[in-house]
Amino acid sequence: MAAGWFHLSVLALSSLGLISILFTIYWMHSWHGGFAWDGSILMFNCHPVLMVAGMVVVYSAASLVYRLPQSWVGSKLPWKITHASLHLMAFILTVLGLVAVFRYHNNKNITNLYSLHSWLGITTVFLFACQWFLGFTVFLLPWASVWLRSLLKPLHVFFGASILSLAIASVISGINEKLFFSLKNATKPYSSLPGEAVFANSTGMLVVIFGLLVLYVLQASSWKRPQVGITTEGQLLLQLGPGSWPVPVTSMPVTVRQPNKPW
Amino acid sequence: MAAGWFHLSVLALSSLGLISILFTIYWMHSWHGGFAWDGSILMFNCHPVLMVAGMVVVYSAASLVYRLPQSWVGSKLPWKITHASLHLMAFILTVLGLVAVFRYHNNKNITNLYSLHSWLGITTVFLFACQWFLGFTVFLLPWASVWLRSLLKPLHVFFGASILSLAIASVISGINEKLFFSLKNATKPYSSLPGEAVFANSTGMLVVIFGLLVLYVLQASSWKRPQVGITTEGQLLLQLGPGSWPVPVTSMPVTVRQPNKPW
Repeated sequence: MAAGWFHLSVLALSSLGLISILFTIYWMHSWHGGFAWDGSILMFNCHPVLMVAGMVVVYSAASLVYRLPQSWVGSKLPWKITHASLHLMAFILTVLGLVAVFRYHNNKNITNLYSLHSWLGITTVFLFACQWFLGFTVFLLPWASVWLRSLLKPLHVFFGASILSLAIASVISGINEKLFFSLKNATKPYSSLPGEAVFANSTGMLVVIFGLLVLYVLQASSWKRPQVGITTEGQLLLQLGPGSWPVPVTSMPVTVRQPNKPW
Repeated sequence: MAAGWFHLSVLALSSLGLISILFTIYWMHSWHGGFAWDGSILMFNCHPVLMVAGMVVVYSAASLVYRLPQSWVGSKLPWKITHASLHLMAFILTVLGLVAVFRYHNNKNITNLYSLHSWLGITTVFLFACQWFLGFTVFLLPWASVWLRSLLKPLHVFFGASILSLAIASVISGINEKLFFSLKNATKPYSSLPGEAVFANSTGMLVVIFGLLVLYVLQASSWKRPQVGITTEGQLLLQLGPGSWPVPVTSMPVTVRQPNKPW
């Protein structure tokens, strides 16, 4: 990929992720009275913000660490630690998001975990916890053999993208559910598409666009760490810096770690 | 992959897809009075069944055509026609599913396309239409150059999986929405998890499991058409038949089309 395209993509993804969080905050702030951590409906308002921030945006940032050309050369350990730390941050935000909704429900004697949104959401968080634990024990700690890592890596990569997809499905069903609740007895019901409905629907669609772009980058071969002995534009970008572009993709040798070699 | 695993996977996927459709039919039949094509609520009941059948199950079957080892050898044209025909069947079922909900809404003066479920759903169907039209004109008709096909193939593959993911997110938000509507004034509300809620939630989770398995098979390298000169277990399966397994993966030569060569 060309340097301009690369930098544009990073900028677009970062902006979209940030806008998704800001839109969710604005929705909860402008139409639902803002935030608190006291078991009231204002505590529930933290739930969508923390889930979009944790399970979608920071999760995506953590997943994309290995797509940065800078991560393709030198020691892999700092990038593994960054990957695991960002995912841990995403997980902490997610757990706080669950605490927000459970404490609100318990405080108001509302049943937990009955809707399909909650079934899918809690399954997604459970898979995320398993994924993080497996990633930490097998890929970050030094005890696992190369054979075990090679065996589990495709599953780790597949579940990484799958958990993001499930998180997006949970977010969509959650926004939909919240709008049916909050616009149930309103003078302008959901079906008349009042301002809140248009804004929250658009936020949901923004999260979908963000998620699709992240999934595209995760699977696109031009964003992946190249094979040994093959020089890519990403590596040239790394060596020459953005100011040197455009340059032809030549056979300039670059030392790259062997793929799947777990160091 | 071993032959036993391959046949087990085909059986599991077919069964899960069929059960997903049957469960949706059972839900609409047992708790919502069955089906009709007359603009009433019984016509709406066709909507979830047709969407699960069209946008998820038949769509998945169409997408998986190239993962059958039988499609890796010989002329590609019959498989392309099968792929396009099954997708066309999926699209027709989907359009009928849309007709069912639009006619019911228009008949009862209910606003169309206001919920996030409907925004995402209609976007997914639009993307599916674009994808089918692009696939038909570029990959099935003979006019497109090899360069154009090679350029568009990764996008076609990416959007193929993305549309399935979006369809699953639409199904989840749709089931969730339907349950909030139908159990709103019930003696046993959604939050008390009556039989219908447990059954429909489970159907949604079944669709998710089916979708994840399909996405796994679509991206797993062992299910993909092998590179020229490399013999895989899938090819041996094709040559020797299921009764010959297990056999060691040797260097037995098999004639395979060159990857990305569009004939």
